[in-house]
Order: sequence, then structure tokens, then C-alpha cells
Amino acid sequence: MALTWPTGFRSGGMHAGIKEGTDLDVGVLAAESPVPWAGVFTRNAAAAAPVQWCRARLGRPVRALIVNSGNANACTGSQGNIATETSAHAVANRLGCAAEEVLVASTGPIGVQLPVEMITGAVPGLLQGLSDEVDSFARSILTTDTTTKTATATAGNSKLVGVAKGAAMLAPNMATMLAFIATDAALDQSVLRESLQSATDHSFNRVCIDACESTNDSVFVFGGTDPAKQVDPQLFAKALTDVCWNLAEQMVRDAEGATRLVRIHVRGAPDEAAGAELGSAVASSALWKAALHGGDPNWGRVLSALGAASRSLDLRAVKLWIGDAPVFIDGEPVADRSAAARAMSGSEIELTCVVGDAPTAVEVLTTDLSPEYVTLNAGGLS
Amino acid sequence: MALTWPTGFRSGGMHAGIKEGTDLDVGVLAAESPVPWAGVFTRNAAAAAPVQWCRARLGRPVRALIVNSGNANACTGSQGNIATETSAHAVANRLGCAAEEVLVASTGPIGVQLPVEMITGAVPGLLQGLSDEVDSFARSILTTDTTTKTATATAGNSKLVGVAKGAAMLAPNMATMLAFIATDAALDQSVLRESLQSATDHSFNRVCIDACESTNDSVFVFGGTDPAKQVDPQLFAKALTDVCWNLAEQMVRDAEGATRLVRIHVRGAPDEAAGAELGSAVASSALWKAALHGGDPNWGRVLSALGAASRSLDLRAVKLWIGDAPVFIDGEPVADRSAAARAMSGSEIELTCVVGDAPTAVEVLTTDLSPEYVTLNAGGLS
Repeated sequence: MALTWPTGFRSGGMHAGIKEGTDLDVGVLAAESPVPWAGVFTRNAAAAAPVQWCRARLGRPVRALIVNSGNANACTGSQGNIATETSAHAVANRLGCAAEEVLVASTGPIGVQLPVEMITGAVPGLLQGLSDEVDSFARSILTTDTTTKTATATAGNSKLVGVAKGAAMLAPNMATMLAFIATDAALDQSVLRESLQSATDHSFNRVCIDACESTNDSVFVFGGTDPAKQVDPQLFAKALTDVCWNLAEQMVRDAEGATRLVRIHVRGAPDEAAGAELGSAVASSALWKAALHGGDPNWGRVLSALGAASRSLDLRAVKLWIGDAPVFIDGEPVADRSAAARAMSGSEIELTCVVGDAPTAVEVLTTDLSPEYVTLNAGGLS
Repeated sequence: MALTWPTGFRSGGMHAGIKEGTDLDVGVLAAESPVPWAGVFTRNAAAAAPVQWCRARLGRPVRALIVNSGNANACTGSQGNIATETSAHAVANRLGCAAEEVLVASTGPIGVQLPVEMITGAVPGLLQGLSDEVDSFARSILTTDTTTKTATATAGNSKLVGVAKGAAMLAPNMATMLAFIATDAALDQSVLRESLQSATDHSFNRVCIDACESTNDSVFVFGGTDPAKQVDPQLFAKALTDVCWNLAEQMVRDAEGATRLVRIHVRGAPDEAAGAELGSAVASSALWKAALHGGDPNWGRVLSALGAASRSLDLRAVKLWIGDAPVFIDGEPVADRSAAARAMSGSEIELTCVVGDAPTAVEVLTTDLSPEYVTLNAGGLS
């Protein structure tokens, strides 16, 4: 059965011509009436025009979002800002609302002017074809993704549906990660905002593919307005985190050129943020990720990455396991690498780093670094 | 004519058996009498045993240095410390000095115990074969380097000779960079220390290959004791920086899998450190470096890297050139990429990033990221 949005939301996708070929490249997600929303955006100073547009809309209800793939509309100067505003106006005119009630998102190559007339040309057909099915919208946001990414959860009597593309907030492999989650739960803007920040911190921000923070990374959550759909904020936050983690894992599995998914567990860091930083440092080591690709249990590169990230790390308190195989315990290496080598041979690898005694545990997801990653990113305007 | 050390220094290299095959893997550099020295070492918390040994010797004159390639002696626990001490003792016993007057350096795979008996077995032959020629020492420190790296300069009536291996301080491609510079200039320890810190900051720390800081990175300078060889400290510092920059460039040209040398010029940053940080951010972008490999003028990735490194960057004040081709000027993209594409096709590429109005200029060296880099680092204990 086709996946459908929560009550009150409809969407659609079209090929407007931004991408060569016939793949869908413009999508709209629309609500029946103005709904509360929250967004988490890239902190990149070169943030794309649509990101700047959405930031300025934070805190006020919206009716719709229009997204295009095939062009980031980033580093495009004043013309880029006009293109964003024009897209919002095109949707607003058809919906009979203000342009300020329409959010915009983009993903694709940076520094190329957006052919906005293709978008405005597609809007009438897009809005006529809106349906409660998720699929065409999910397809319209893809770039180098090989599959659509969706996830669902329930919280009380309400439903959450999420759609995403790309890799990860802190580390997109191809230009951008975008995620859109809609729920029919009636929630205050403040609950949506806090839940989304926490969910993002514990999911998309725990993924590190190549440590490049994109100009377009955005995560949106849209709430409902039906007073019968009340849900405990804690319960909702948990469900939202589940949806985001599920989408994050799908992004990692679909990362460009990746052949292995790696779960890096960091335990015992002074606090969660420190643990996440250490995990990201390991996940960012090109040397370790190249070794991962070759299935080489070269854990020295893990220690080297940890030691470069935390100058005060005490090796005598550090323990490393690859899978279940101990490789370094309390400052001393384990001579036999054969069990670790076996644990490196699978398509999913667990690395556990104990760095101290504090009761913290953080999981960071990454992939290996393959020659294909380089080849994929070596050409074309991506 | 063979390159020789400044008066007072001799060296040698041997195959002790640490590396498979017949390549030289142990070297000694010895001074006729105790000489002042200075060292700059990795700040990695997982610093190798020899680094810890040398740090403890800072400030006191030394007679010799023993170095091995083929094993980093890092993350090797108490046994690693003993191996370092044993190496120093072996040299000291033959030279008739204290072990504390012998420095130690290592480079190679991390986390493998050093077969120190091979080193102690080689020491007698090594010390018997010392000569004023640089070559065998220069060969004994290589790992994946394809050529030896040497550089010379003069300052007044004194001579500087430097030898190096690997990539770069902030970003070694293979485990480690090591550099050894000797001079016959009679200089205070403090002059050596300050000159070396400055020279390292302006050379090895301006190279960024893969942003992995190794457990073994070390740069040493050894001074002379002949009172007739006085030299102005400023003149010496300049000559030392020249030698280090020359060695740094050789490292970049020999970086694993690299096909292009890239000079990133950052101008207008608030200060030199900020400029170097921005340059390193661009040099660390896997996405940009993959584009470099393909000769793709994808300057959006440069802006994305700059914007992620400096959240307060004002794009309206940013200008980018690839070679002589402007690609982004004061917030607006240049539509025609053809000149930039031509500038990307050479084996040496210049990227200029103007980020503000301050009178600062910094050059950072890097390379492209090639599929060969990944393949080279995907297997074996490196």
C-alpha cells in the first residue's frame, strides 16, 4: 500500500526541466490550512538563498513548501534571492495565501543560477496534481540518491511521516541533506522546535560521511491543527527522533560509493557533545576510512584520530574493540589482529571506543571511503 | 656531487630488517660534540614513544639521533617506551655519551611492537659507517615516499641542510612527516627554538593533504658550536623557513596518489592564523579535492568549505579566482566557467580566495584526492 501523509497534508512532484532527462525535480508539500512548523538549517555562512528565506519565516505558520532538486541556488547572489521569492510567490498565488506562508528548499550544484521560469511553469500542474501519497514528492528531491528515503512512526493517536534525501547534516556527501517530516499531532511551535533540534542532534548530526557541511542542509517538521490530536511532547520527541534516525541510517546506506556502514560507539566521554566530537573525528579520518574500505583492522588510525581531536586523551584509559575483538586495552595493543580482521570483513562494522569513565554513550554513523566516492565527485557540476 | 652535511655532522643508514625487502630502515645522525637543538612535535594525545622521549630531552644538548622507518612505535604501551630507551642506549654506548643525549624518531604502522633487537643489532655497523654524505640517511627514513627529500640554504657563512619524508605536519598522508635540519651556525637554543616554531608554522603547517595529524610528526633542527660561525638570528630564521618550505613542497609533490599540486592563497583574513585556518578548510574538503582530481572548476565547494569554517564570512566581500579566471566576485557568481576549467587542467593549480580587507596573505599547499589515494591506504599495515 502506498505511503500517505498524515491527515491535512498533500504533495506532488514533477519534472520541470532543471535536471536533464526525465527525473522529477520539483515538489510541493501543502497543508490544508496554516500549520505550525520548525526548521533546523545549515550553519554554513554560504547558506543558500532558500535557507535564508526559510530562516526569516521561522515562528510563523505556513501553508506549503516548494522544493527543487538539480540546483542548489547557493552562492547565486541577488538573482538567487529573487528566484527563491519568485518560487514562493508562484505557489502562494495558486493557494491564495501570502508568499511568506510558503517555504522553499533546493539541492544540487552550487553557483549556478536557478532557471526559475521552469519552476513557475510547473507550479500550476503541481498544485492540481496534489495527492496524499508521498512517493512522487520523495522522488522529486533526489540527486545522486539511488532510492527514496521515507520513515514513519506513531505517537499516541497521531502519525509522523518523514521523507529525506542525501547524506548527513554535518557531512553531506552530495551537496545537501534535506528532510521533511509532517505530523497530524497538534503541537505548539515551541514543542516542534525543541523536539526537532533534539532529534536532529541525535540523528542527522551523528552521521559523518565526508565532514563537508553543505550550503543547503535543512530539516523541517510540520505540525497539525486538529485539537483532537493531542500528544505528550516527550512521546512526540521520541517518535520524531526515531523517524530522523531511521532516515539518517538510510542516507548512510545510500552514501556515494560507500560499501560498508560503520557504527562508531564512543563511551565514557565527559559529556555527550565530547563523545559526538570524538566519534566524528574518527568518522572524518580519511586514512581510517580508506582502511575500512580495504577491510584492514588498522586501529592505530582510530587512536590517531582520537588523539588529534582530544589533546588531553589519556591512552592508559582507552579501550578499543572492532566488533567483539579487543584491539587496544588500557594503553597496550593487542598483538593478534586476526579476530579484528574478521570483524572488518562484513558490510556493517561496529567500532567501540571507551575513552574514560563517565556514563555517556554516543553512536556516530559513517561509511568507508572508496575509490568510487572520488570518481563520483571528480566531475560534473555537483 | 653528493650532498653533504654541515661541518660537524655525519650520518648513515642501513637495512636492519624492520621493513620487508632490502630498503634502508634505520638511520643515525651524529654530531662530533654535544649540540644545541630544537624540536616541534605532533600535538596528538596518542603521540608515539619516541616523541615522548624527545620532548623530555628538550632544552639540553644532544650528540645523536636514531630513526627507524617501517614501524611508528606508537600506541605500543610500556613495551614501546622500553624499545625507545633501548635504541637510545645502544647508540649512547657506542658514542660514549648518556642515553639522554640521543634522540629517537620512528615512522611507519601504528600499534605494532617495534622489533628493537633489529635496531640494536644494526647500531654498531651504522656508527662505523657514518659519513658526511646525506643520501643513505635520507633513504633510511622513507616509507611510501617515492623519492628522498633534501634542501639546502646558506645564512651568512653557515650552511643549512634539511632532510624529510612524508607529507605534512597538520596532515600527513602516510602516518608521519619527519624532518631533520642541521646547521653549523652557532646559535642559542632559544634562537633555534623560535626559528623552528616560526619556520614550521610557515611551511609544514601550511600543507594539508588529508587533515590527519599523525602520532609521530616531528621536526628537528640541530645547531653548531663553532664560535666562528655567527649568524644574525633573523637571517637564520629566514633560511630555515626556506629550507622547510622547500621540503614541504617536495612532500606535497610526492603525496600518495596525488596528481595535482594546489596552491591556495587566502588574502584579507583578519589575521594570519585565520587565513591559514580558512586555507586548511578548503584543503580539507574531500568534495573540492575530488573535483580537483577531475579538473572540474566546482568553486561552489570552495565557498561551502569557507562558509563552514567561518560562520561569519560575508559572501558579499568574497572574491574567488581559479588561476587568473574570476569565478565569484563580491557575492555574485561568474556565469562563464570555461576559463576556470582551462586553469584546472594543469598539474599545478592556483586558487585565490579574498575573504576581506585586512592586509594578510597566506599560502596553503594541498593536492587533489584521487582514487589511488584510497587504494593505497585501503590495505596493509600503514
